[in-house]
Amino acid sequence: MTQAAASVTLAPGIKVSPDFVTEHIEMYKAFHRDPELSSHEHRTAAAIEARLDELGIEHFHSGGTGVVGLLRNGEGPVIAPRADTDGLPIAEETGLDYASTTTGTLPDGSTAPTMHGCGHDTHITNALAVAAYLTANREAWSGTVVFLFQPAEETAAGAKAMVDDGLWDRAPRPEVVLAQHVMPQPSGTFTLRPGHMASLADSWRITVRGRQAHGSQPEKSIDPIVAASAIVLRLQTIVSRELPPTTAAVVTVGTFHAGLKENIIPETAELSLNIRTPDEETRTKVLEAVRRIVNAEAAASGIGEPDIVEISRFPRLFNDAEHTERVAAAFREAFGEESIINAPLGMGSEDAGWLGDAIGAPVVFWAFGGFLAAEFEDGKAPAGNHHPAFAPDPEAALVHGTAAALSAVLSYVGR
Amino acid sequence: MTQAAASVTLAPGIKVSPDFVTEHIEMYKAFHRDPELSSHEHRTAAAIEARLDELGIEHFHSGGTGVVGLLRNGEGPVIAPRADTDGLPIAEETGLDYASTTTGTLPDGSTAPTMHGCGHDTHITNALAVAAYLTANREAWSGTVVFLFQPAEETAAGAKAMVDDGLWDRAPRPEVVLAQHVMPQPSGTFTLRPGHMASLADSWRITVRGRQAHGSQPEKSIDPIVAASAIVLRLQTIVSRELPPTTAAVVTVGTFHAGLKENIIPETAELSLNIRTPDEETRTKVLEAVRRIVNAEAAASGIGEPDIVEISRFPRLFNDAEHTERVAAAFREAFGEESIINAPLGMGSEDAGWLGDAIGAPVVFWAFGGFLAAEFEDGKAPAGNHHPAFAPDPEAALVHGTAAALSAVLSYVGR
Amino acid sequence: MTQAAASVTLAPGIKVSPDFVTEHIEMYKAFHRDPELSSHEHRTAAAIEARLDELGIEHFHSGGTGVVGLLRNGEGPVIAPRADTDGLPIAEETGLDYASTTTGTLPDGSTAPTMHGCGHDTHITNALAVAAYLTANREAWSGTVVFLFQPAEETAAGAKAMVDDGLWDRAPRPEVVLAQHVMPQPSGTFTLRPGHMASLADSWRITVRGRQAHGSQPEKSIDPIVAASAIVLRLQTIVSRELPPTTAAVVTVGTFHAGLKENIIPETAELSLNIRTPDEETRTKVLEAVRRIVNAEAAASGIGEPDIVEISRFPRLFNDAEHTERVAAAFREAFGEESIINAPLGMGSEDAGWLGDAIGAPVVFWAFGGFLAAEFEDGKAPAGNHHPAFAPDPEAALVHGTAAALSAVLSYVGR
Amino acid sequence: MTQAAASVTLAPGIKVSPDFVTEHIEMYKAFHRDPELSSHEHRTAAAIEARLDELGIEHFHSGGTGVVGLLRNGEGPVIAPRADTDGLPIAEETGLDYASTTTGTLPDGSTAPTMHGCGHDTHITNALAVAAYLTANREAWSGTVVFLFQPAEETAAGAKAMVDDGLWDRAPRPEVVLAQHVMPQPSGTFTLRPGHMASLADSWRITVRGRQAHGSQPEKSIDPIVAASAIVLRLQTIVSRELPPTTAAVVTVGTFHAGLKENIIPETAELSLNIRTPDEETRTKVLEAVRRIVNAEAAASGIGEPDIVEISRFPRLFNDAEHTERVAAAFREAFGEESIINAPLGMGSEDAGWLGDAIGAPVVFWAFGGFLAAEFEDGKAPAGNHHPAFAPDPEAALVHGTAAALSAVLSYVGR
Repeated sequence: MTQAAASVTLAPGIKVSPDFVTEHIEMYKAFHRDPELSSHEHRTAAAIEARLDELGIEHFHSGGTGVVGLLRNGEGPVIAPRADTDGLPIAEETGLDYASTTTGTLPDGSTAPTMHGCGHDTHITNALAVAAYLTANREAWSGTVVFLFQPAEETAAGAKAMVDDGLWDRAPRPEVVLAQHVMPQPSGTFTLRPGHMASLADSWRITVRGRQAHGSQPEKSIDPIVAASAIVLRLQTIVSRELPPTTAAVVTVGTFHAGLKENIIPETAELSLNIRTPDEETRTKVLEAVRRIVNAEAAASGIGEPDIVEISRFPRLFNDAEHTERVAAAFREAFGEESIINAPLGMGSEDAGWLGDAIGAPVVFWAFGGFLAAEFEDGKAPAGNHHPAFAPDPEAALVHGTAAALSAVLSYVGR
Repeated sequence: MTQAAASVTLAPGIKVSPDFVTEHIEMYKAFHRDPELSSHEHRTAAAIEARLDELGIEHFHSGGTGVVGLLRNGEGPVIAPRADTDGLPIAEETGLDYASTTTGTLPDGSTAPTMHGCGHDTHITNALAVAAYLTANREAWSGTVVFLFQPAEETAAGAKAMVDDGLWDRAPRPEVVLAQHVMPQPSGTFTLRPGHMASLADSWRITVRGRQAHGSQPEKSIDPIVAASAIVLRLQTIVSRELPPTTAAVVTVGTFHAGLKENIIPETAELSLNIRTPDEETRTKVLEAVRRIVNAEAAASGIGEPDIVEISRFPRLFNDAEHTERVAAAFREAFGEESIINAPLGMGSEDAGWLGDAIGAPVVFWAFGGFLAAEFEDGKAPAGNHHPAFAPDPEAALVHGTAAALSAVLSYVGR
Repeated sequence: MTQAAASVTLAPGIKVSPDFVTEHIEMYKAFHRDPELSSHEHRTAAAIEARLDELGIEHFHSGGTGVVGLLRNGEGPVIAPRADTDGLPIAEETGLDYASTTTGTLPDGSTAPTMHGCGHDTHITNALAVAAYLTANREAWSGTVVFLFQPAEETAAGAKAMVDDGLWDRAPRPEVVLAQHVMPQPSGTFTLRPGHMASLADSWRITVRGRQAHGSQPEKSIDPIVAASAIVLRLQTIVSRELPPTTAAVVTVGTFHAGLKENIIPETAELSLNIRTPDEETRTKVLEAVRRIVNAEAAASGIGEPDIVEISRFPRLFNDAEHTERVAAAFREAFGEESIINAPLGMGSEDAGWLGDAIGAPVVFWAFGGFLAAEFEDGKAPAGNHHPAFAPDPEAALVHGTAAALSAVLSYVGR
Repeated sequence: MTQAAASVTLAPGIKVSPDFVTEHIEMYKAFHRDPELSSHEHRTAAAIEARLDELGIEHFHSGGTGVVGLLRNGEGPVIAPRADTDGLPIAEETGLDYASTTTGTLPDGSTAPTMHGCGHDTHITNALAVAAYLTANREAWSGTVVFLFQPAEETAAGAKAMVDDGLWDRAPRPEVVLAQHVMPQPSGTFTLRPGHMASLADSWRITVRGRQAHGSQPEKSIDPIVAASAIVLRLQTIVSRELPPTTAAVVTVGTFHAGLKENIIPETAELSLNIRTPDEETRTKVLEAVRRIVNAEAAASGIGEPDIVEISRFPRLFNDAEHTERVAAAFREAFGEESIINAPLGMGSEDAGWLGDAIGAPVVFWAFGGFLAAEFEDGKAPAGNHHPAFAPDPEAALVHGTAAALSAVLSYVGR
């Protein structure tokens, strides 16, 4: 090993030892092996707490399986980097030697294989690496860093749970909330822009109540399958006819369940919907249209208003313009002018925004590439988030994710 | 010519001269050549009146182009045979030398070729033949026969118009109303049974009012074509899901008109419906369901209740059980035991019933075959009513239609 | 107890002791307490066999849990009365002291409460009572009676299973197959007529294969819920537009299952259909239309032909005209001229017909009332078949069901 | 009147006399009074030719009612400014004293009131004003300007007609084609950017052939209204499910016509569609999807592939990047940095692009504001293009439209 190998440059002015890299890659693999489902991140939280203890960072539980680490270092700004911690009910098909072999319990009590299929394990590791760097280099900065290890991002429950659990009564209120997400783009590139960074998303469960009868006696029934099918078809017209063609919205009916036996017209049909909209105004309009259509199609069948229950509600993820420019400037300095991609609005959703919006604090969220550039050559692309074969490159994701987070953090608290 | 040829036997006890047959066949062909549209039967009414004058039968106008002939012959029952008189906007394709070459004016002011495509010309001729027989054979009967030459059967307007015009204030109220219709069945056969003889029929015009916009801006529109299409599909569920499978009902959307240009989303869509039901209870249920669906599908589009205008309303055609048996007995005697066919309920409609129902008088309606038996051999069948090639056999229709009507009439007023 | 009480008259010439009635009512209640699901009638078959052993009637297994009893009594006709034996997966809500407390195992391995919710327990008891009477009164008849205790009527599997298992190779072929069913009509009334006595019924499972994608990326999916919903709505047009209004047919989509999570567009949607038609010609036409629509709506979504799997297929139940008149004559003599109701075609299904059709033997099937007349007063009606509260009157059902079966049997083999 | 009033500054370095302005406003009003429908611009062409004659500019007919003016002025670039000339079948409701009182003849032979409802009268006038300026100021420029007065923009027929008529064989091929359009934005603002400037648009007429029958006999029909309604609803799924949410596309069914009478199921239903897509790839995908759905829904009804006829096809309008920047630079200089609005892709369509695309010449197209800024205060907005009250301010539209065109022209041929 040469002397040059004695340090690795994460970004201009940010050097770490090769051991730092190796240690965090192993940490990442350990998290990857043991994913837990949303709101059940018990072992994950314990591992985070153990590491914070090692680093001498005080911490407390928040919102069930959330963990908040408080790293104080004299006077200066308070900032809050956030890492989400939950895995997904996906059977991993990466073939990696550190692939998950864990199962988790779903809300209905059944079990399912779990996977860190959205890369939250990289987020955890990056945040812990930032914490390690900051504790080891206290001379390089001053201020307070509030590490937010947030559970249940996938269900939009975690940020709200932490806020509702008094997060900002127990931790100092930050000048800015910073959050990042690994994406299938080359390492060293970042997607970042002011304004909406993700779709608002609402999930609803709709129960259409008809009247049961034998399959041979439709006249004694009110057929909920016909009513719900009419709802499905009519919902298509919201996107096709009620919104401007340039408005990016989706109304997906993800589940349709009705009936036990082919010769019995059932009593009810249950739909679940996922509705994505680019802004609050469109959200309000689309949700009203969904409700209007659901009620009207039920009325066409001669039945009352179906039950509508909210399953989840992803708030906006809105990047503050001024702070986004500040972070972008840090990235341009650290990774070059070409490192920032102004990608169009994706249709994904994120609840990180609520951690700031709840107290009026600005938010900056960016995506970082966690894959080798070679994976994108010749029009190829690696498997994306939520795919069973989603597999960031450990070193690429660790080095660039940590470097990005550190650059952003130090743009506030650095000396 | 032999002595036998000196008379033709219409039915037992009813003989007429060959000239009688020839004369009425020519009369039939004359009516066939010159059909007029519903409520416009002016030349037809004039011809009927001229013939009644020849026969010395008093008459008066009723319900616009209706004609009522009063033939009194001493004491006895009052009965009212009815013949409908209107033609159809069909371009005749029979190839007959007495085919129609007439055109008529439609409600919208346009003109159309006309045809006696439902055989009302046979009904007129049969009634006039009955009148001729009765005036020539006064010794054979006593009582009063009220001949009802009713216009506008095809639009369900004629019977109502005559009743509303004071028909039964001017003519003596009958013991029974008798009506018949030529059908594509072998001459000498009759369809007759107690109870409902035809469907109730309602026709509605529905105007769905959306909001016009350029075709590139659906968000500024409320698309009435989408709403009306949803109405069309949802209406199917009335017959398929809301009625017992054994209930014979039809909901037809016969017209759908919307839009002037492909790149303009129009303001309105107009549907017209034809709704056939077997009885008043089903009628009420189906009309309510149509209204419910139309309003709900409009609501699904966010628009108010569409305009619904009644185009026509065919009342029930309900054969009184006792009187039907009386007429059937006459037919069995005249045409044999096998002459009566107990056919299932047809989906056709007829407004003859109202001529009796309006005053609580019983009604008997039957179909008679006006075609040669040979036309039905080997699974063949002649063109049916309303078809451009509909062509009863003149002699078959005249002889058997007149004989049936006379048999029925004489079963009341015969000595 | 008076001498008169020493015997009960089931029908003219058919007297039994009060103990006969009491014993069979208890037998009925025992069957009622212990229903078993289709093709699982093991305890039921054992009880039937034990009783046949008591009566000295030879028997053999047939079609799994079917039992065939052979009662020979000299020369004479061979006839085959049939009783079906299976219960239903319904949680009984009759409140009777002999209500079912049994559970059974469904095809998918789950368990469900079971109930004799279609009255097959009365059919078993009646057949065993007929057997008891015939063994006790051998002087009253001569011939051979083949008792068919058929399993799995509810799934249309039992008659076919017995025939496929060589039923008519092992038992003598009968002159007629007789079958009866208890119905919610007053005891002493019978529904019986020549021709079709039930609907043909076909059940299909249809799997629509789309393409899975995240709920935010419809463009990467082929949405099977939209395709299946379009199938459901288009299937309505078969009954509403493709069949004559007077044709009694039903196309029911009884189940619709698709999707696991609201934000994932699923890979497949599964429908199950129940299709009822009055005759083979309509059956063929409707099944072709279902297949055409399913394939076309899949094509509209850009996917291949969905998988269609037959779940069950109820054959025709067609009463032979001559034999029906023979049984009807027996009923008129035994129960009076007014006892026979010529009800319209019901939409129910029955596989009894196949026991005769498979070998070209005529079939006579009738419904008998198993309820007290008082239950129908003032427009009331007792709970119908398949309802959790379905509860025939034990004495009414036993006496009249046995008397009817005996009258019919003796009309063939009585001396 | 002061000396200053002796000239009006159109743009830096472009001064004209007040009479120039007055004369062209009067010219504009004359064109406005007398609009002609697409491909019928006979009087308009004659007026243009008369004016070109006055200016001494040679010209020739092209593509029917198109006029090409050739203004040569020594060596230099050849450029081709284009103005479209047709009006619309709209009844003007502006209340202006120069409002149209003209009618025109539609393709079906009927007449309709006509209006310059899309502002092409401003385009004509601006082009003639440019011609007047260039002829009066020959010292200010050198090169060749090919004025393209193109008919039938509204039907996408005009550009193609001129090209097919040998336009570029008779006129010198230009370095760039320049085209502009008046829009409801404040005068002095311009919408301009590289890439697609308008939607591709395809209009199709679709005839669904069913089978006619009487409204009471759906079983004898194949109902084209049901089939076409199913097509309408299924077409919604192209935008809602087959395209990325961020893709701006529209599938509008603008007309639906079927049936003559409510009680006749018609033989055919005719739809017309307008399909807008942002690029060729999406265009191909959407048109294939439309065809697939139309054919499949017909198949679901058991009928063959409907006839599909192209009504019109708007090509792309694609701004060349380099030339767009050149024009934009001219506008920034003339009207200020803030004058250029980078508006999102509109869903409108334009056939100007073909004039360049047909010969591989670059195209620059921009929109210019023709309304007073005061009309946009307090959230108000004037009536838009194609609205009966569309009314640009004559002076604002003349001055700024002419100035913009001149700035662009002179950026190529100016000395």
